[in-house]
Amino acid sequence: MIRRFSTKTLTHVDASGKASMVNVGNKSLTLRKAIASCTVHLGAGVATAIRENTSKKGDVLTVSKIAGINGAKQTSSLIPLCHQLNLSCVNIEFDLKGNKLHITSTAETVGNTGVELEAYMGANIAALTVIDMTKAISKKTFVNNLRLIHKSSGKSGTYNA
Amino acid sequence: MIRRFSTKTLTHVDASGKASMVNVGNKSLTLRKAIASCTVHLGAGVATAIRENTSKKGDVLTVSKIAGINGAKQTSSLIPLCHQLNLSCVNIEFDLKGNKLHITSTAETVGNTGVELEAYMGANIAALTVIDMTKAISKKTFVNNLRLIHKSSGKSGTYNA
Amino acid sequence: MIRRFSTKTLTHVDASGKASMVNVGNKSLTLRKAIASCTVHLGAGVATAIRENTSKKGDVLTVSKIAGINGAKQTSSLIPLCHQLNLSCVNIEFDLKGNKLHITSTAETVGNTGVELEAYMGANIAALTVIDMTKAISKKTFVNNLRLIHKSSGKSGTYNA
Amino acid sequence: MIRRFSTKTLTHVDASGKASMVNVGNKSLTLRKAIASCTVHLGAGVATAIRENTSKKGDVLTVSKIAGINGAKQTSSLIPLCHQLNLSCVNIEFDLKGNKLHITSTAETVGNTGVELEAYMGANIAALTVIDMTKAISKKTFVNNLRLIHKSSGKSGTYNA
Amino acid sequence: MIRRFSTKTLTHVDASGKASMVNVGNKSLTLRKAIASCTVHLGAGVATAIRENTSKKGDVLTVSKIAGINGAKQTSSLIPLCHQLNLSCVNIEFDLKGNKLHITSTAETVGNTGVELEAYMGANIAALTVIDMTKAISKKTFVNNLRLIHKSSGKSGTYNA
Amino acid sequence: MIRRFSTKTLTHVDASGKASMVNVGNKSLTLRKAIASCTVHLGAGVATAIRENTSKKGDVLTVSKIAGINGAKQTSSLIPLCHQLNLSCVNIEFDLKGNKLHITSTAETVGNTGVELEAYMGANIAALTVIDMTKAISKKTFVNNLRLIHKSSGKSGTYNA
Repeated sequence: MIRRFSTKTLTHVDASGKASMVNVGNKSLTLRKAIASCTVHLGAGVATAIRENTSKKGDVLTVSKIAGINGAKQTSSLIPLCHQLNLSCVNIEFDLKGNKLHITSTAETVGNTGVELEAYMGANIAALTVIDMTKAISKKTFVNNLRLIHKSSGKSGTYNA
Repeated sequence: MIRRFSTKTLTHVDASGKASMVNVGNKSLTLRKAIASCTVHLGAGVATAIRENTSKKGDVLTVSKIAGINGAKQTSSLIPLCHQLNLSCVNIEFDLKGNKLHITSTAETVGNTGVELEAYMGANIAALTVIDMTKAISKKTFVNNLRLIHKSSGKSGTYNA
Repeated sequence: MIRRFSTKTLTHVDASGKASMVNVGNKSLTLRKAIASCTVHLGAGVATAIRENTSKKGDVLTVSKIAGINGAKQTSSLIPLCHQLNLSCVNIEFDLKGNKLHITSTAETVGNTGVELEAYMGANIAALTVIDMTKAISKKTFVNNLRLIHKSSGKSGTYNA
Repeated sequence: MIRRFSTKTLTHVDASGKASMVNVGNKSLTLRKAIASCTVHLGAGVATAIRENTSKKGDVLTVSKIAGINGAKQTSSLIPLCHQLNLSCVNIEFDLKGNKLHITSTAETVGNTGVELEAYMGANIAALTVIDMTKAISKKTFVNNLRLIHKSSGKSGTYNA
Repeated sequence: MIRRFSTKTLTHVDASGKASMVNVGNKSLTLRKAIASCTVHLGAGVATAIRENTSKKGDVLTVSKIAGINGAKQTSSLIPLCHQLNLSCVNIEFDLKGNKLHITSTAETVGNTGVELEAYMGANIAALTVIDMTKAISKKTFVNNLRLIHKSSGKSGTYNA
Repeated sequence: MIRRFSTKTLTHVDASGKASMVNVGNKSLTLRKAIASCTVHLGAGVATAIRENTSKKGDVLTVSKIAGINGAKQTSSLIPLCHQLNLSCVNIEFDLKGNKLHITSTAETVGNTGVELEAYMGANIAALTVIDMTKAISKKTFVNNLRLIHKSSGKSGTYNA
């Protein structure tokens, strides 16, 4: 059997098998960008509540957007082996169609390590904030398909899902 | 048209439509529990890497468990309108079958407000940590079906998905 | 000379003159509330920008409100001798008249120590967020009269400015 | 009517009117400096308490200084659309005259985005710490004239109030 | 061989051997207190610098005291399986004799879980702050004998080292 | 008497004797590395518990390792006058001999200020996590000899203990 990941190993596990941070000190400083997305399947009544609210005041989505941006900035405190980095931009966008709220989160830095997790975190925390703000209407809201859709720069080059 | 949520309103939006925290000062102190779960669909090679690693050292899942517990404790800093509360317990459990890693997160407190978001956050941060630790093997790992499966106590009583 | 504060001493300075936390372990658990306010004097063009924005999307004030609530929750990490406490409610209200934006911040807890600083912090961080979001229009915006306007419960009883 | 801010727009509001972070990835790395200040009007007895304390042990002002420095470092977690940055210096200075305590806060970085908010935050948290440490003596202490007094570098050049 | 800890097991390791938080939801609320201490062995010149500084301004020890108090409040974010709790008091005391700086840290809460780690953390962060503030004078300063000296209340009763 | 530190002064105390951050804005960006270590003297039964646990699951040491890495990343929030910096690597290693657990912590950055405190913090938080996870077995565990063993780059060059 050919091991599919023969040259791909767990980057966070060191020689003796213990968890460790990747040393990024000698990686080059380049513009690094990642985009993640997820779909929030809204429980009964939630889409209407968000939509009416949005058209009038935009509150649920504005609060969720702010939460997503703030969450992305906290990534290195939340994911144990993530490096600290200073994001040059985070953006969270919403697309509400029927009962599905699609969230796209973009993170960028000029640095020596990628920002995939920061992008995931933005989408993630935005989705949980939507759930928090609407859970009195329905507890059946759930999140699907939280995934990476784009990554550019870094050793592994550009990736598109 | 009958408004489906005629008696259920957005709890975080005040009379003038602006976002606000629910006042929980006169809610009773009771044992409150919530369970959330999600399924991490592992990209090619990831399940094997986790499984071998688990049987030998348990690292990926142990690190993700610790991250989930820590994340649950940070919920009120991440979700803008969540109340601060002291969790009496957080537990994160993993069930790896084939290429699917099922994560169950349980949060408990004795307090005056529910812990649904703390449960979601535990599952969520654990899932993202798995992604972070295995993203060098595959970028195709994604998270599905992040949802609430149980909630007990509080005004709305017991809920089971 | 009569020392005006003969019976009022610096609560955070211990017998040997060093800073210390007040021990609140034997204070009673009661509902404690505090209200603080400040006035943001908006630079040229800022009031119009907020007002148009508010009527259409509410963004500047919604973002500042969320920031104020989040800031109030971080008080014990920011003010060295403040006690940790779980707020049962934080509310931030805005009143925009001419070029003056009046911010009122209310904090409540059921606990053994007051929430004045949490109320101040809410008003304060909301004001700084307004400044951050409008500083490209004018750098002349400033904050005046950040003060306590109400405090109830606790040993010193009810205070109204 | 000539719109006074015809070429100056809300930098944190994107094309569709939603809040967003400014992308600073292509701004140049330069030395950036900002100075903010405020005046704390001390309630009866507070100035004396600080002064005596200062001459003997310096506690109130030292604690407030430390709090201001620490607060400045937390700016990007507190102000939602502020960028993360590593401050190369924060300094907090006090000038106590009569019942007025003047606080000057200086922040510097070598980076691609300004440090105005970091300077404001330093003055701000220092002022609130003075209030916290002296509120048992007087609740009438208030903060006035929290403003930017200097900013250098960045696209808009040097600004002096 | 008699296993010395036959009835004492690792409280943070669950049945399947994975790390987990102890559930403290059904423990009683009592006054809980812990005292930890350590000795900082000061490198050449450091004791004199602290002493002169202390007699004049108290800065090094005041800053370290504030850092220790703040650190104790952050314990549940730093120690993965520690519970969140609201400390009713933290105190850090210094005793400088010759080249040895003895630090005693006391933590108290009214709660359902002990505060040993909060006491350790206070002593610990105070010691590291002394090192940080004096490392330009000597890099040979080190910390010894960081230990628990007292614990009261809780299932295991009172402990004195 | 010859003052031993005639040319070495407290870097964190400014001209008027008040605490302040060193301005590192004009220091050069170089690879900076520091190694700190400590020895945890394990109470009765603890070494066996860790060892059995380690050989089977590695939990105590893995959790402590993760805690140490996370703690190192929080250094600038915990040590008041430490600069913010983005670590390119943190590593925590354990060596368990008899009843002594030796912890070595390595921190690296490419930056303009040293990482000694980050290295200390990693060792420190790892040690306290070991204590937390084993305190039900013995309360007599203590930490000795927390010290700097290596530092390279920076104005003062390479240091080895």
